[in-house]
Amino acid sequence: MKVTLERNHLLKSLSHVHRVVERRNTYPILANVLFKASDDHVELRATDLDIEVTESVPAMVSTPGTTTVPAHTLYEIVRKLADGAEVRLETDGGENMVLTSGRSRFNLACLSPDSFPDLKSGAFAHEFDVPAASLRELIERTQFAISNEETRYYLNGIYFHAVDNSQSGSLFRAVATDGHRMARAEIAAPEGAKGMSGIIVPKKTVGEVQKLLDGIDGDVHVEVSDTKIRFTVGPVVLLSKLIEGTFPDYDRVTPKNNEKQMLVDRGAFAVAVDRVSTIASDRGGKAVKLSAHDGLLELSVTNPDHGTASEELAVDFDIDAFEIGFNARYLLDIIGQIRSESAVFLFNDANSPTLVKEEGEANALYVLMPMRV
Amino acid sequence: MKVTLERNHLLKSLSHVHRVVERRNTYPILANVLFKASDDHVELRATDLDIEVTESVPAMVSTPGTTTVPAHTLYEIVRKLADGAEVRLETDGGENMVLTSGRSRFNLACLSPDSFPDLKSGAFAHEFDVPAASLRELIERTQFAISNEETRYYLNGIYFHAVDNSQSGSLFRAVATDGHRMARAEIAAPEGAKGMSGIIVPKKTVGEVQKLLDGIDGDVHVEVSDTKIRFTVGPVVLLSKLIEGTFPDYDRVTPKNNEKQMLVDRGAFAVAVDRVSTIASDRGGKAVKLSAHDGLLELSVTNPDHGTASEELAVDFDIDAFEIGFNARYLLDIIGQIRSESAVFLFNDANSPTLVKEEGEANALYVLMPMRV
Repeated sequence: MKVTLERNHLLKSLSHVHRVVERRNTYPILANVLFKASDDHVELRATDLDIEVTESVPAMVSTPGTTTVPAHTLYEIVRKLADGAEVRLETDGGENMVLTSGRSRFNLACLSPDSFPDLKSGAFAHEFDVPAASLRELIERTQFAISNEETRYYLNGIYFHAVDNSQSGSLFRAVATDGHRMARAEIAAPEGAKGMSGIIVPKKTVGEVQKLLDGIDGDVHVEVSDTKIRFTVGPVVLLSKLIEGTFPDYDRVTPKNNEKQMLVDRGAFAVAVDRVSTIASDRGGKAVKLSAHDGLLELSVTNPDHGTASEELAVDFDIDAFEIGFNARYLLDIIGQIRSESAVFLFNDANSPTLVKEEGEANALYVLMPMRV
Repeated sequence: MKVTLERNHLLKSLSHVHRVVERRNTYPILANVLFKASDDHVELRATDLDIEVTESVPAMVSTPGTTTVPAHTLYEIVRKLADGAEVRLETDGGENMVLTSGRSRFNLACLSPDSFPDLKSGAFAHEFDVPAASLRELIERTQFAISNEETRYYLNGIYFHAVDNSQSGSLFRAVATDGHRMARAEIAAPEGAKGMSGIIVPKKTVGEVQKLLDGIDGDVHVEVSDTKIRFTVGPVVLLSKLIEGTFPDYDRVTPKNNEKQMLVDRGAFAVAVDRVSTIASDRGGKAVKLSAHDGLLELSVTNPDHGTASEELAVDFDIDAFEIGFNARYLLDIIGQIRSESAVFLFNDANSPTLVKEEGEANALYVLMPMRV
């Protein structure tokens, strides 16, 4: 292999593919990025056996060929090369790749491309285009609620599926939950996604896709099979395994009859929750108590080690005496998702799940389990 | 105690004093900040038994008194209060302090001020004023070379002393070393510092003083005894124990006869060292080899696990064939201190300490031990 590339092109592609490579690997080949030079481009590929990212970089190919080199080291080297520099990569068919650029010269140990794993995609049952902005929105609004508990592996991702709704037509919905809170967001279902049964996209994949979507306009092409999903974002192709498992029936835990409605200024509420939870510690004070009376909401935290904190806020609430407790961290996460000026809380009672959403027509919905206070 | 303060004044002082408080403490009282309210101010004080920071905040004192409250919690609370808010602090003489501000109310557990430790200052043998900018410079130029090895406790700080030099008059000098590299910086000795014998100021104290100096013009008042040092920076007084021990005779290891002089562009050199050391890992490649020949300097790194890296630079060097190796990290630390366009290297041979300094009249000097390559 003998190729010449522009440092900036190479850096951009490496920055996409190298992220998927884990810092510690059981198999040395997984630390490497695959280079395939042919025609007028080099194809870069990296994988962690669950996700595979592929991107083509324009190149002057003098001798076509294939090799693999350490992904993180190469990324760091290319990052440190001068902006706009030319980079030459050359293998002697043996165990080394020589990188030269300006007066710098690197000799990197290669591994044979023969053993580089291939995450076979198989056939896809569904494919559709979705605006990058919509996909970004679905991810942003639900990602925080993904569970990190490994034993509940079926909650370690975002559940995507199509819903037929007589009112709003066909919807494409994203749901995440860790058993304590749930986040649900939806868009009009793209043509091709209709009728798609549910899939669970792993947390790491969600994070990688989110980074790829950064600053992207236009559409993303999505292909789905029973076991895999493939995203094409501009020149980057990300193929990922899906989580095999059954996502819980989230609709069953979504409250339908919460009729005690409270409107509160989002900004003031977030600041107050943050302030009273200052006295929380690992040992206590994680719960913030909300007590409504006479058009005021009192937020309070008690930590036996540190003391107590309380704050009052004006709210729009018809019920005169109501108390409920929530995990302060979870409450802040959800309130951080609200974009309207007021947040709408829909309570049932102090022991039942509470609904939180934006004012007016909301395409996202949050459910929060109460804590005993 | 019953006082009213401005949130911004209180926050500024707390930000100075709370930093000295350790996150984990053997004695609960050490987690607290002492409040002493009298006349028209509140004195705040915090200590870790080695350093004590004191600052007065203007206040409306309704009832004078004294108490102690958790420093980090209070700092976080005050930080989260609204800009420009008024803060009321009130104790009932018992175990609680009530903080109120706007609609927020905090009840914080107090500890009796009786057991709050007092780092008695004793009498000071020397005192002098030094421009904040000069003290900042002495710290910045030497701090990085402080040793973290606890067994060599006498190297865990900066050594300050006065030097009588027939050429330049009386100098005030800062020195730090970890046995692998040494940094030395000096200013004209302030009146009052002349004849001062050496003291070792601990690393944590150096760091705290540096933060206090941030953005400060004018003079800092310094008082020194055999066991303590006191810095007065505006309204803040920092009293610290000194390290008891003997600083090594650094002059003996400062090369006097290094006559092989090399001039190299500082920026290009730093970039090149950084680039070739990319292939270093925990297991190898920490040493960068410098080989001079024909007016060129070749920098190279070899890491048996990853490969090799090399780069060439134009240098101004009379010796035709010279090789020496250095720890890449240490070399970057020192080159980062050079402010002239070129760095001046003064070599003896591949096994002897090398001098590095700025072009022209330099008030700082760096010594670096070579590594075998």
